[in-house]
Amino acid sequence: MESVDLKKLARLLNLSISTVSKALRDSYDISKETKERVIALANELNYQPNPHASSLRRHKSKTIAVIIPEIANNFFTLAINGIESIAQEKGYHVLIYITHEDAEKEVAFIKHLHNGRVDGVLISLSSSTKDYDHIKELQERGLPIVFFDRVYEHLNTACITTDDYESSYKATQHLIDKGCTNIAHLMFAESTSIGNKRMKGYVDAIHDNGLPFDEKMIVHCTNDDEQDYKLLEKIFRSKRPDGVFASVERYAILSYDVCNRLKLSIPEDIKLISFSNLQAAAFLNPPLSTIRQPAFDIGKEAASILFKALDKKMFKLKQENIVFKSTLVERESTSNSIIRKASDNKKVF
Amino acid sequence: MESVDLKKLARLLNLSISTVSKALRDSYDISKETKERVIALANELNYQPNPHASSLRRHKSKTIAVIIPEIANNFFTLAINGIESIAQEKGYHVLIYITHEDAEKEVAFIKHLHNGRVDGVLISLSSSTKDYDHIKELQERGLPIVFFDRVYEHLNTACITTDDYESSYKATQHLIDKGCTNIAHLMFAESTSIGNKRMKGYVDAIHDNGLPFDEKMIVHCTNDDEQDYKLLEKIFRSKRPDGVFASVERYAILSYDVCNRLKLSIPEDIKLISFSNLQAAAFLNPPLSTIRQPAFDIGKEAASILFKALDKKMFKLKQENIVFKSTLVERESTSNSIIRKASDNKKVF
Repeated sequence: MESVDLKKLARLLNLSISTVSKALRDSYDISKETKERVIALANELNYQPNPHASSLRRHKSKTIAVIIPEIANNFFTLAINGIESIAQEKGYHVLIYITHEDAEKEVAFIKHLHNGRVDGVLISLSSSTKDYDHIKELQERGLPIVFFDRVYEHLNTACITTDDYESSYKATQHLIDKGCTNIAHLMFAESTSIGNKRMKGYVDAIHDNGLPFDEKMIVHCTNDDEQDYKLLEKIFRSKRPDGVFASVERYAILSYDVCNRLKLSIPEDIKLISFSNLQAAAFLNPPLSTIRQPAFDIGKEAASILFKALDKKMFKLKQENIVFKSTLVERESTSNSIIRKASDNKKVF
Repeated sequence: MESVDLKKLARLLNLSISTVSKALRDSYDISKETKERVIALANELNYQPNPHASSLRRHKSKTIAVIIPEIANNFFTLAINGIESIAQEKGYHVLIYITHEDAEKEVAFIKHLHNGRVDGVLISLSSSTKDYDHIKELQERGLPIVFFDRVYEHLNTACITTDDYESSYKATQHLIDKGCTNIAHLMFAESTSIGNKRMKGYVDAIHDNGLPFDEKMIVHCTNDDEQDYKLLEKIFRSKRPDGVFASVERYAILSYDVCNRLKLSIPEDIKLISFSNLQAAAFLNPPLSTIRQPAFDIGKEAASILFKALDKKMFKLKQENIVFKSTLVERESTSNSIIRKASDNKKVF
């Protein structure tokens, strides 16, 4: 059987090869009618793009895109630095897109990348993303894509994450070990993979320690500071937690604020621990116990895998989960033996 | 005289109009030889692009680029949010490029934008940028560009900044009012417009108050945490400043770290004030006095001006300086009457 290539499609359609090629890549300078004609015939004849040719074509932009849900978060700024350290080595530019947790924006950005603007994509999903057709479509166009942090594990590609379940379990256990029995979890984005894993770690630690589980101690936070402040104020007043486990740095800073307002002392009244890569965590009052993610390394690893697909023509990304370990950094916000001196800003630990 | 347009150039060169147009835009799918032929004839005949046509062409990407020197800085993350608030309204995508204070990267990014990838550019210059030909060239290609924060004031476009001189003067005066007589300035990027203005504000306040000026109290910080830590440790030990004015948030956090190490108390031994948009500033130990820049509004204004140029075909950007006021937020790090209680995290102010 004669193989179906661009040349054959072009001849049968009476179009130039370049027009057929552009139509298949959904280029904006080809009309809708032409695209439809080309795609119809390509499907009919079961046309498969030549992987060598498309790999060569893909290398044109020398640019990769990084799509992240938010930017005012030290995890993502560190991850970007990790990504850029690899891209720099490879002579690639890095474009950053911020979805602001908006699935529609994510879809629009991905569509925007269809026309060869970039050679590959690194993405951390928005919290409102509930279907993944836009990602699948991009993959089907031959653009390599790698997930980090907020991932979707059911595509043929790599997912780089931290041990979200284990570190949430450890953080909750840490609060229990320090004497907490009534622990609130400030939860983020239940629809995401990490939101769920972090909640499950909390729930399991509560159960395994024989503590009563109260669904109302799971606070479903949002992206809005004002709204979250009110949520926290309400739960801190009504439920009087003696421990708080924040799944996101921003909620920890809000907790300091709410405690100030309610004249609750950390750690005497409430012990606090949070996922956080905040450089100033050690200098907060009191210093904040954190679960620190290896954000730079996660970014670096995600970029390294993407560049394997970009460097080697025949390399195919496969489904794999790469999990980095987080570190629990114990500081005064979860201490149960306080020796603080007035007008003294030296660390206790 | 017959006017010289793309059509005429194409006819004389025996090329298609689209090839000539692409060659003039330095498109990557046109050969070097062809580009040289086209440009030579265009120059010879003094070809001037039709402003309407190029304005229409410019609107194709529905994308603007934001070039910033660093990302782990709350000023820039807030400014980006301001920019995106406007771009969203206009239905535009925002691409972010980070130069990491590297002038070469800045030049490479700007070159990367030559081929119609974006419709306009917002830029905050890298600290190592010393010549501006890359910016001028981009402007000459008809791409609107607006500066914010780190600006170059000698081009026909808008510069959006804060009152860097005045707020630095105020910050230094604040330390003097609190009793400081030996004040160190942690200076950033002397080659930049804002680096110089901030230093001048400090120097003038010292002089105007009749305090002795010591050049060695100006610490020339870098972008490297480790190196800066050593610089600060050295000056804190040898010069024993009683006040520190940090021009960048990162240096303030390092100052907490160095004070901890040297067992110096803030504000008893050293009073500290810093330019900063850190949300956690109020919860540091002690809370940090800051000069807070209206970062979101600066981003919003820069984007609004850029979109005037994008929306109106005949709008021409002109040289103008728009200056936003910063706010001095007094907190405990510059207090001279300390009433702090052990194991108490309530605010004094």
